[in-house]
This record gives sequence, structure tokens and C-alpha cells, in this order.
Amino acid sequence: MKALIDEIKHTPLLWLLAAVPVVFAAHAARPEEHTLLFLLAVLAIVPLAALLSHATESVAAKTGDAVGGLLNATLGNLTELVIALTALRAGEYLLVKASVAGAIVSNSLFMLGASFLLGGLKYHVQEFNRASARLQAGLLFLATVGLLVPSLVSQADALPASSIGSGPSVALSLLLIAAYGLGIFFSLGTHRDEFKSAAHAEEGEAPWPLGLALATLAGVTVVVALVSEIFVESVEGASKTLGLSPAFVGFIVVSLVGAAAEMASAFSAARKNRLDLSVGIALGSSSQIALFVAPVLVLLSHAVGPEPMNLQFWPGAVVMMLVASLTAFLVTSSGRAAWFQGVLVLMVYAVFALMLYWLPPGAGTPSAPEPR
Amino acid sequence: MKALIDEIKHTPLLWLLAAVPVVFAAHAARPEEHTLLFLLAVLAIVPLAALLSHATESVAAKTGDAVGGLLNATLGNLTELVIALTALRAGEYLLVKASVAGAIVSNSLFMLGASFLLGGLKYHVQEFNRASARLQAGLLFLATVGLLVPSLVSQADALPASSIGSGPSVALSLLLIAAYGLGIFFSLGTHRDEFKSAAHAEEGEAPWPLGLALATLAGVTVVVALVSEIFVESVEGASKTLGLSPAFVGFIVVSLVGAAAEMASAFSAARKNRLDLSVGIALGSSSQIALFVAPVLVLLSHAVGPEPMNLQFWPGAVVMMLVASLTAFLVTSSGRAAWFQGVLVLMVYAVFALMLYWLPPGAGTPSAPEPR
Amino acid sequence: MKALIDEIKHTPLLWLLAAVPVVFAAHAARPEEHTLLFLLAVLAIVPLAALLSHATESVAAKTGDAVGGLLNATLGNLTELVIALTALRAGEYLLVKASVAGAIVSNSLFMLGASFLLGGLKYHVQEFNRASARLQAGLLFLATVGLLVPSLVSQADALPASSIGSGPSVALSLLLIAAYGLGIFFSLGTHRDEFKSAAHAEEGEAPWPLGLALATLAGVTVVVALVSEIFVESVEGASKTLGLSPAFVGFIVVSLVGAAAEMASAFSAARKNRLDLSVGIALGSSSQIALFVAPVLVLLSHAVGPEPMNLQFWPGAVVMMLVASLTAFLVTSSGRAAWFQGVLVLMVYAVFALMLYWLPPGAGTPSAPEPR
Repeated sequence: MKALIDEIKHTPLLWLLAAVPVVFAAHAARPEEHTLLFLLAVLAIVPLAALLSHATESVAAKTGDAVGGLLNATLGNLTELVIALTALRAGEYLLVKASVAGAIVSNSLFMLGASFLLGGLKYHVQEFNRASARLQAGLLFLATVGLLVPSLVSQADALPASSIGSGPSVALSLLLIAAYGLGIFFSLGTHRDEFKSAAHAEEGEAPWPLGLALATLAGVTVVVALVSEIFVESVEGASKTLGLSPAFVGFIVVSLVGAAAEMASAFSAARKNRLDLSVGIALGSSSQIALFVAPVLVLLSHAVGPEPMNLQFWPGAVVMMLVASLTAFLVTSSGRAAWFQGVLVLMVYAVFALMLYWLPPGAGTPSAPEPR
Repeated sequence: MKALIDEIKHTPLLWLLAAVPVVFAAHAARPEEHTLLFLLAVLAIVPLAALLSHATESVAAKTGDAVGGLLNATLGNLTELVIALTALRAGEYLLVKASVAGAIVSNSLFMLGASFLLGGLKYHVQEFNRASARLQAGLLFLATVGLLVPSLVSQADALPASSIGSGPSVALSLLLIAAYGLGIFFSLGTHRDEFKSAAHAEEGEAPWPLGLALATLAGVTVVVALVSEIFVESVEGASKTLGLSPAFVGFIVVSLVGAAAEMASAFSAARKNRLDLSVGIALGSSSQIALFVAPVLVLLSHAVGPEPMNLQFWPGAVVMMLVASLTAFLVTSSGRAAWFQGVLVLMVYAVFALMLYWLPPGAGTPSAPEPR
Repeated sequence: MKALIDEIKHTPLLWLLAAVPVVFAAHAARPEEHTLLFLLAVLAIVPLAALLSHATESVAAKTGDAVGGLLNATLGNLTELVIALTALRAGEYLLVKASVAGAIVSNSLFMLGASFLLGGLKYHVQEFNRASARLQAGLLFLATVGLLVPSLVSQADALPASSIGSGPSVALSLLLIAAYGLGIFFSLGTHRDEFKSAAHAEEGEAPWPLGLALATLAGVTVVVALVSEIFVESVEGASKTLGLSPAFVGFIVVSLVGAAAEMASAFSAARKNRLDLSVGIALGSSSQIALFVAPVLVLLSHAVGPEPMNLQFWPGAVVMMLVASLTAFLVTSSGRAAWFQGVLVLMVYAVFALMLYWLPPGAGTPSAPEPR
């Protein structure tokens, strides 16, 4: 417990934990103040995500490489998963899909671009392992394509959104999860040597004792779930007041908030001239969303959602995800980075954000049917 | 003749030749048993394709490098060409286009992915010539783009399918064939040194005497044409019974059956750690379809088809071909392969197959006009 | 003055300057002979563009690296800018957008492809700096994506063309120009060493004295503007007579004419086995159009145009620009070139030209609204 409190004292990010009781109190006192609740929930999730991330790594460090790697691989995006699950239960499928698409785009553009920029402001040119980056970026591209083929084909052929029924979505989800499982076997089993550098993400920080880590993992997950409830509940009212579409909130806000902890690690590695690590975190996290989080949400929608969710994204999101994964490949394929590449990648991300702000999905069509 | 019989005895694949008389007998006895005839025709084409492939290489080996290379380059996809020509004569244009699109996708995804997987199960990491792979993958990308520009532009601008008339299609076909001819001059003439490794595809097998090879080439082509007649005739009835769309049959079945012989070579090379060869066969075969087989079919449609065929593919096929050629570039650009990359490439292929099974072109539209 | 006359005497291209007085005389005498005026204007602009280019470089050479680099970077596409501005004032927005799209495509496909072909006819294989080419091609891809995201997203989501209002276009233009400014700071400031080879483009030619260069720059810009008036005025009539759409004229004719000087430099460098320089000119010029010329035109449309111009391109142009920037990346990523790569890149460009000739934007739709 002392370790936890020490950690909180020395990590300014964790001071935001003060927002957690405030958001519960505010929700009890003023359940109709959507905008306030939304902002407080965002503030509260950031430090909780950081705690979850550290707890996962501590458990991983204590349980040995195999189990630990598996834990890191499945719980690395736990915050996004919990928020999306809450939105799924509430039937907010556009928010769920926007947060999945946004997580892939934010991780591969914002996290990568900001790492290049922050590292490049300190170092003239940064080199990183080209072969390993190309391998990971290739995997990300294939994962994204696998996730998007249904949307691509049905859009190209101008089929109605409902044409991808429940059957194909479940079959594709199982295929993606199987590929993900084989990928874990690949990176932790047969080819762990290729992925070694990425394994020691937070080597500077001391891991917590196993008991504390497990308790934090369980407790904080519950708190994240509770805060997510308030977040999802308040999103609609708040986005109306703030003039943001649910797609913008899911795509930009949820994905940046949920990945705050990974971003902190990636940026800190870039400032230490360890761009291999930054690239590994950014690309690995994106792949995980495409191959694991998205299909798990489809499968769980059969159990917890009001109706099954399919894998069809709105066309603008498809374009953004494809461009993001292709960009990730192109900018990492040279194995060298400088600040201006970071600027350009961030510019593309900013253009995406502007587009979502001005042209949310469905804008312009008289009666926009919400994608299922 | 003894050489031919020896070959058959020692190659289990060729035992399938027994299906050839059976399919003719069955067609004579039961012309209305479409499903049975379809399956028998598929079984019969596989060993015939292997014989054609070996005969072509034997003639090539005997006639010296220049003529031989030219023969390999033009007859390498003879089976696909004969099947497509039969379908063309029958006016089955969707089947023709599906088999062209499927050949490009199957060769660059299935053949490449399975080579990576089969090689990777035996060798930890396989290296291959990065520069040569990138050159060939770049050529494949340009060939695919050249073939698809009409479809891309007319789709993007939402022009009706009939907008690409006969004139542009013929002009484009001549342009593609000219590029193909220059490509042969490049790879066999000015820059043969760059392509040397791919030239000795089957070096293990003894070439047949020239007479036998030529006779086999002529005879087997006729037999393939006859079996193709039965195949094309039975496709419609069989695909209804089996619940498969003509697009699925053309895209998946025809392309896998027609390329069986090349696949056997590519897989065997991968198992011998000669991935350069596998990559060369997969990418070269795909390029040949785009630059030679497809435009030849357009030109021949003016002579043998009920009406001229254009170069407009249905949108889902365009997406799949572009994704396939881009994937081929991305996965070969590192010059290294391991089994998991093969798994992911095969996963993308499987997703394509699932999509075609569930969402054939035209599904969802009330009256789907068959693309010409 | 003598330097200028000497230059003209020794450069056959500049003999075309004789067309300048002819076009003015013809315009005064026969203002209704649109086709003649159009052809004369094209002939007159080519040598004027070459003069502008040499004058810019002479000023740059005299004013030191920093100011000179800035001048080269902003005035490098001055001809395109002046023609597009004249079209903007006349409200010919389709012509403006076609010339922007065409400049990106022609520079990255035609200039690159012809450089590869011309160099490859002289040298067996040409090597160039892979890392620097990949960096520049990556920047071009990101610049193109930044420019095209609005078109991509609004098309994907099937929004009406008017959905990208004035606000988003201005904001995006400012973002692109800011990125361009940072790019100049990058290439001339913090990382000038990476771009050194491209700086000495025309080292063989003696720079003019500063006074002559400045006077030429000012005077020729005025003449280009006057000829552009005649060009824009005659385009509509001439394109009807010649059977060309305004999109074809803008895309192919304006872009090739405007970039004639850069092309001469790039081709001459390729013939001297300095492909680094050719690649740098082709990719740099394309990036400049996307990040500087296009947004400047949007901003200036508020001042000089009849109504604000937005950043929405017609879908076929979007496809062509994306394919062009991706092709530029793929063919330069190996760092090696041979003549056949040039042929294939030129083939893709020829297919684009054929498509624009046969299927101009709006063809097939009964009442094609001109994109704003």
C-alpha cells in the first residue's frame, strides 16, 4: 500500500486521482450536469489508466516472461476495453466503433508522430531498428485490412449497412482473435528474440509487489467501469453542449484518454533516444485493438448488448484507419526519424480531427441511420 | 512417352489424371449432374495444369534462354487463359473477370502467404533478396494500378458501368501488352542478371525431350479446353447447388486450381529455404495476369465472345486486388519472413474468401446488373 | 542584358520566346480564334517558365543559402501559381483544381518515370540515396494525404460537395502552409545537411547578375500573367474544338507546360547519372504544390475569386493523386532504378491521361455540377 501511495506522490499525473471521488460526488448531487460530469470523468480516467498500466506490468514482471507477456498483451488496452464495454451495454454502437477506430488512428498517428517530434527536438536524427519496425508495421497493416475488409467490400459494392449480418461478423471476429493468439505465440514463443527490446517498457520503474498489483488491477478496473458508466451516460448531453459529435468524442477523446499511459511511456522512451520502444508501443497497441479488442467487443455484444454489433465501420473511419496504418508503414520504413516527420504525421492527425469536428459521420444525409 | 509415364508414376498429384476420362464419361452419361461434373472437372484440371507447366518448362529448357524465357512468360498461366477463354466464349463475363481478379489475389496472397508459412515452419527466419523482391512487387503494384485505373476512376466518379466503352478498353489492353512485352525484353534481355535466380525454377526435375514436351503441350491444352467446357457449363448449376456465387467460384476455385502447378513449385522452394524463388513465382505470376492474360482476354473477346468485354471490375474486386498488391509489397519489403507473416497474409485471403461467400458482387442491390 | 541574350541564343528552348509577341498580336487581331490562341499561349509559356526558373535560381545564388533556399522553395512553382491565379480570377475552379492535381501527378509520375527511363537508357542500373528518397516520398505522401483528407472523408461518407464549407478549407489551408513553413525551416535550417545534394540543381549554368535576375523575375512574371489571361480565356473554346475537357487541359497540359523547366533539370540530371537530384526535384516539386500552392490558392480565392474555393477535388483526381504519391514511394524505396521501371510509371501516367480524355469528371451524370 505504501508503494502505491509513494507512486502517487511522485507521479504528478496520478494527482488527477482526486477527480475520481469528485466525479462520483458530482454524479450523485447533479446527475443532469452532463458537461461537468463528462469533463470530470475524462480527468478521472487518465490516472486510472496509468494505474492499470503499471499494475499490469507489475503482475507481468512477477509472473515470468510467458504469463507476463500474455498479460501485457491482453490487458494492455484494458481501459479502452472497459469504456467500450460500458458503451456497448448502453447500446451506443457509434461510440464503440468510433473509440475502436480512434484507438487505431491515435496510436499509430498521434503516438508515433508525437514520439518523433519529442525525440527529434532533443536529437538531430534518431535511428531505430528498421527491420523490426517494418515487421510490426506490416502486421499492423494486415491487421487493419483484416478488420476493414468487410467494410471495404460492402462499401465498394454499395451494399446496405445491414448486409454484413451477425454470422460473418462472428466468423471474422473468431478469425481475428485466432490470428491474435498465434501472434502472441509468435512474439512470446517462437520468435521472442525479435521482440525483446519492446519487452522492457518501463524498466526504470520498480514493479509493485504481486498482491498490491493484483489488488490494484481488480480494484481499479471496477472503478474505471464505474467512471465509464458516468462517462457514457453524460456523453450525449455533453457532446451536444460542447458542439461535438459522438464520433468525435469516441475517436479523439476516448482514444487519447484511454491510451494516456502508453503515450507517457512512448514519449519518455523517445526523449531517451529509444525510439525502437516508442515505435513498438505505438504499433503494437494499434495491432492489439484491431486483432483483439474489436473482435472481442463484437463477440461480447451478443452477451451484453441490446443487439449484436457487426464489424462495419462508417466509410470515413475506414479511410482514416487505412491511411493511418499505411502512414505508419511509410514513416517507419526508413528506420530514421527527425522532428519534421513528427510534425507531418501530427498534421495528418489534426486534419482527421478537424474533419470529424466539421463532418461527423452522417452529416449531410437527411436521415443518417446510425451504423449498427 | 516413357518419360511422361515415369513422371506420372512418381508424382502423386498426377494420379488425379484418372479424373480426366471420368469427367468425360460422366458428362456423356449424365450431362445434367452439374455438381458432380463441376467437382470432377476441378479434380481433372489440377494435374493437367501441372503437366502443362512441366511441358512448358521442358520446351523452354530445350530452346535456349531467350525463346524459353519468352515461352515461360507467355504460357506460364496457360491454364487460367484456357479456362477464361472458354468462359469468354460462353459469355460468362463475371466468371472471366472473377478468375482474373482471383488469380492476381490468390497468387500474391495465398501463394506468398502459404510459402512464408510452410518455409517458416521449417526455418526460424528466412531471408530473401530485398532489392529484387521490391523491384518485382513494385512492378506488380504498377501493373495492378494500370489494370485498375479505369475501374477506379469510373467508380470514384460514380459513372455507370457502361461508361468504359470498347475503345478505351482496347487502347488500355494494347498499352498493358506493350508494357508486358517491354518487361520481357527487360527481364530476358537488358537486365537478365537481375532475374537470374527465378529462371531456374524447377532445376531438380529433368526436362522432357523436345518432341514429347511439344506434344504434351499441344495435347494437354486441347484436353484442358475440353474439360474447361464441361467446367464452365456446369458452374452455374453447381454453384447454385453448393450455394456459391459465380464470383466466388471464379475468384477462389478457378484461381487456385489454375495455379496449382506454380503453387507446388513455390511451396517446394520455400521448404528448401529458397524464398527468393517462391517470391519470384508468386509476384511474377500475378504481374503476368495483370499485364498479359487480362488484356489478351479483352482483345480476344472481340473475336470469340458474344460481345466485347471491357476492363471494368466490380468494386469489391478492385479493393481486393489493390490490397493484395500493396500487401505483397509491404510483406516482401523487409527481405525477411517468418511463419506468422504467412499466417496474417493467409488470414487476409481467408477474409476475402469469406466476404465473397457472404457478399458476392451484386448482393443487396435489387436488380444487380452483371458487369460486362 | 547581354547575359540574358546570350542565354537565349544558346538555349534552343528559349527560341520559343518568339511565340510571346505572336500570341499578343494574334489576340489583338483575332480574339475569337480560340484554338490558335490556346496553342500559341502554350508555346509562349514554356520558355517563360524556363526564364522564371533560371531567374529564381540566380537570385537565390546571389542572396545566400537561407534567403535563396526560401526563394527557390516559394517561387519554384511560380508559373503554375500565376496560371492558376488567372484561372481563379476568371472563376474557372475546375481548371484550377485540375492544374493542382495534375501538377502533383505529373511531377511524381511523368517527371520521375521519364527520369528513370532517360537515365536507364544510358546507364544499366542507377543507384540513388534510398534513405533520402524515402524521407522525401514519405513527406509527399503525408502532404498529399493532408490535402486530400477532406475529399476522401466527404466522398467516403457520401456527403454533398458543398459540405466542405469555407471555414474548414481555410483552416486546413493554414495548417498545410504552417507545415510547409516548418518544412522549409527543416530543410534549410535544422537539417540542411540531409537535403544538400538537391540544392545545387543547375550548378553547370552561370547565375545572372542580381539586377538582371530581379528584373527578369518581375518582368517575366507580368508577361506570364498576361499570356495566362489569353490562355484561360481561350481554354474553353479551344478545348471544345480539340475535343478535350477542361479537366484534361488543366491536368495534363497546364501541368506539363508549367513544369517544363523543372523537367529539363530533372532529365538532364538523370542523363548525368545524378538520379538523387532528379528524384529530389520531382518529389520536392510535388510536395510544394500540395503544401503551398494549393492552400495559397484557396486563401487567395477569398480575395480575387468570384467566390471562395474549397479543397474538395473530384473523386477521380483524388484516386490519381493518391496512386501517384504511393507509386512515388514504392518505386523510390529500393534506391535503384532501371529503364523498365520508368516505362511502367509512364504507363500509369498514360492510363491516367487516357481516362481523363475519355472520362472527364462529370461524364455520365446528366447534369454534372462543377465542383467548387
